[in-house]
Amino acid sequence: MPLTRISLRRGTSEAYRHAILDGVYHALRETFDVPEDDRFMTISEHDKADFSYGAHYLGIARSDNLVIIQLTVSNTRSVEQKKTLYRRIAERLTENPGVRPEDIFINLVEVAPENWSFGHGIAQYAVSECDGGLRPSA
Amino acid sequence: MPLTRISLRRGTSEAYRHAILDGVYHALRETFDVPEDDRFMTISEHDKADFSYGAHYLGIARSDNLVIIQLTVSNTRSVEQKKTLYRRIAERLTENPGVRPEDIFINLVEVAPENWSFGHGIAQYAVSECDGGLRPSA
Amino acid sequence: MPLTRISLRRGTSEAYRHAILDGVYHALRETFDVPEDDRFMTISEHDKADFSYGAHYLGIARSDNLVIIQLTVSNTRSVEQKKTLYRRIAERLTENPGVRPEDIFINLVEVAPENWSFGHGIAQYAVSECDGGLRPSA
Repeated sequence: MPLTRISLRRGTSEAYRHAILDGVYHALRETFDVPEDDRFMTISEHDKADFSYGAHYLGIARSDNLVIIQLTVSNTRSVEQKKTLYRRIAERLTENPGVRPEDIFINLVEVAPENWSFGHGIAQYAVSECDGGLRPSA
Repeated sequence: MPLTRISLRRGTSEAYRHAILDGVYHALRETFDVPEDDRFMTISEHDKADFSYGAHYLGIARSDNLVIIQLTVSNTRSVEQKKTLYRRIAERLTENPGVRPEDIFINLVEVAPENWSFGHGIAQYAVSECDGGLRPSA
Repeated sequence: MPLTRISLRRGTSEAYRHAILDGVYHALRETFDVPEDDRFMTISEHDKADFSYGAHYLGIARSDNLVIIQLTVSNTRSVEQKKTLYRRIAERLTENPGVRPEDIFINLVEVAPENWSFGHGIAQYAVSECDGGLRPSA
């Protein structure tokens, strides 16, 4: 269910971008109970004039290699799970493809479980209004 | 009011993309009480390395023709309306331009009515704090 | 903390786009208590076929110079602050680079303070569950 949008400066290799997508996907699997193959991700590359960032906000020294990660997810996770996700994304991306931890920016947008359709025009996560509220964790 | 962002693999025709925009717009008109001409939509095309999807998640066989539709809308619709929207988008896009129903991914992001300005720096949908809460359905 | 995504038709100058980014940033500083250097912004340019808008919705005469501004922010502002933000963005962008007020479309997406990580995999705005709920205004 997560819909992942990543924004970068233009000019990285395909292998680099592939490693970022894989790292975020596996961090979501490990910390947000995301099922296998639940992976919907895009990357947008930007020229210098179209990618602006605070180079020192909160005392963190960012570079042009900043990776902006915006994840739309269902609103079913605790604050502790969110913290664990951020830590795991940072661990994975620093390991491969070697992003500096200062250059990892993450934002979560939360939505109701019925706000997804994964195909066929069906709301696969919607809960019938009379079934007592069972929901998949993802 | 809906702000529609569509992500696709690069390489489709303009007519194909035009039909997708029109189909989503008319489905919103039919199911979400969206007024005529309330249409704000962008498409982003992605190369293979920048567009990653689960090819079998939930048992749905997706292809490179996957259409990822993210709609930001006011938080005024019921679960039933959302289900009807997904169904109608799928019906319209399978009819024209002929997207496979497996390749239609939809996500709704909901916001408060006062979270929109349609021009002139005015919050056209904001409710005065003392007017009893009348809101346009859109 | 605001994550700003701007969508435009392709073909404007870098100076024009730079002025838009600066205007939105300073309007956020002035009205949303955004700290200095808290600036994370991208611009995406679209061809005609990929940028569709209602040219007369709500009686506002829009042109191809429409600027679609989507801001993800923490959910800590009042309706009055939001109205002030819209007004200030419109004032700044009409002054420089000279956008028509009819061509300024703004949408806010609100998230919880713990939904941000500004680097190092840490949730810098998250409130410990036992500290009484102090939060930075930004």
